[in-house]
Amino acid sequence: MDREIGFIGLGSMGLPMVLNLLKSNFKVKVYNRTPEKARDAVAAGAQQMDRAADVATVGGIVITMVSNDKALEEVVFEKDGIGKKLGVGGIHLSMSTVSPKTSRKLASYHEQQGSYYVASPVFGRPEAASAQKLFLLSSGHRDAKERVKPLQNALGQQVFDISEEPGGANVIKLGGNFMIMAAMEAMAESFNLAEKNGIDRQLAAEVYASTLFNCTVYQGYGQMIAKKSFEPAGFQLSLGFKDCNLVLDEANSTKTPMPLASLLHDRLLASIAKGRETHDWSALARVASEEAGLE
Amino acid sequence: MDREIGFIGLGSMGLPMVLNLLKSNFKVKVYNRTPEKARDAVAAGAQQMDRAADVATVGGIVITMVSNDKALEEVVFEKDGIGKKLGVGGIHLSMSTVSPKTSRKLASYHEQQGSYYVASPVFGRPEAASAQKLFLLSSGHRDAKERVKPLQNALGQQVFDISEEPGGANVIKLGGNFMIMAAMEAMAESFNLAEKNGIDRQLAAEVYASTLFNCTVYQGYGQMIAKKSFEPAGFQLSLGFKDCNLVLDEANSTKTPMPLASLLHDRLLASIAKGRETHDWSALARVASEEAGLE
Repeated sequence: MDREIGFIGLGSMGLPMVLNLLKSNFKVKVYNRTPEKARDAVAAGAQQMDRAADVATVGGIVITMVSNDKALEEVVFEKDGIGKKLGVGGIHLSMSTVSPKTSRKLASYHEQQGSYYVASPVFGRPEAASAQKLFLLSSGHRDAKERVKPLQNALGQQVFDISEEPGGANVIKLGGNFMIMAAMEAMAESFNLAEKNGIDRQLAAEVYASTLFNCTVYQGYGQMIAKKSFEPAGFQLSLGFKDCNLVLDEANSTKTPMPLASLLHDRLLASIAKGRETHDWSALARVASEEAGLE
Repeated sequence: MDREIGFIGLGSMGLPMVLNLLKSNFKVKVYNRTPEKARDAVAAGAQQMDRAADVATVGGIVITMVSNDKALEEVVFEKDGIGKKLGVGGIHLSMSTVSPKTSRKLASYHEQQGSYYVASPVFGRPEAASAQKLFLLSSGHRDAKERVKPLQNALGQQVFDISEEPGGANVIKLGGNFMIMAAMEAMAESFNLAEKNGIDRQLAAEVYASTLFNCTVYQGYGQMIAKKSFEPAGFQLSLGFKDCNLVLDEANSTKTPMPLASLLHDRLLASIAKGRETHDWSALARVASEEAGLE
């Protein structure tokens, strides 16, 4: 089993994941574009490197958890990137939320190098990452998926094997984020109808979250939408907008009409027009409230 | 405490509710427009009456569980209805899914008679009714809501006090059915995107229902939508269409734009145009599949 791992990206998700790998006795070399962000990882025992390529060893495993498709391509393809370094038998375990297209492109590139690409986006917030409660999706070559399992198990509570096709896990991740935003819009409209009828929004939220919809998406976001309290952001609206665009790109290229995704796109776009990029993505609910004359 | 109760409407919900009242040692007089449907209730100890009015006693309580607004108004207002019979201090405990407007009209009428109207629509399918697992909503005069609680507790697991305004519980019930249909449309679009990417729909459904959306709405309907299996109906699409129209009526009268409800209305209307009134309401998902060329 692999005990020495490279890890790129020490943001709000990456850092707690590195800490859990260290707790499970993996040796972890880390790289982050902004070096200062490596401090807590280093204090916990990680070894900080100056260049992305330096966390990779020939035939080894590198986990990436960066903010978008562009950042991911950079750490692979740039001069000091991991692309050439991983070599024959190496695995790029890619946990960022990126497009299926990017995963397919990277998988094809790694294959040319004799290395593997496993897409493994996760469901869960930073708190879930800390508590090793993430859910991980997995798509890519069968052997590579098998070899990264001990790492995935050190990071989360369950791994779902989606497909050999490398973009599959990204499709499921994007579909999940789309469904969360759909639930937010449904709550927004429903709570507005309650408020217009003189019913307390929080009572409405509590009823739904303890009966038909007793799951975390409705419980957590229901409270925020009921209280119209969207700051500080747990997940920024600008990132939700990015994901919604990735969903619609994929819908276009596979010819899958998604009118609800299109509605959400307009909600997010209006939110950005109103300057709410840095609010929580549940702030998309405000557009419905404004339309109803409730703000 | 009231031990003798009238009950009108012995459909798939009403019958198991009457059986539970009998089990809790209430004496129940029942009336159903189609008398044959009373057989099982009578076999369990209920007393069958020939006219709606006969289940009511002056100052007593009558529960109604009928299929729509028109049927509810008839059992109150028709010559042999309960309207005049309930008398001073009587309570009409109205559990059907009807519009807030109908509840307000009936509450006003009962008030003129010296009786009370409590709107108490429920969340839960016939299986939940059998298992005393319903969730009950409650709106109306405070004293009347208090007096019907022992009955509500005999029928379900929890009662939510929504408002004194009589239509409040109906608003919350309709909002819940709207949110269920919104979840169905979100699953339909998301599963289609998965299928178009070569991912098994049932795998997609399982991932979502065991991670982000581990609640019964997504678990139950997710399976039906993944399998595209919409018969036999647990809840007929024609009834979902009725509820969606009630949501949009209420949206109109309170000036609450609900674009997602409008989208669902079109999905249901297309389903009816295609002759699917008697399929399960989750069959609204087929329209998205057809648009994507997947049927």
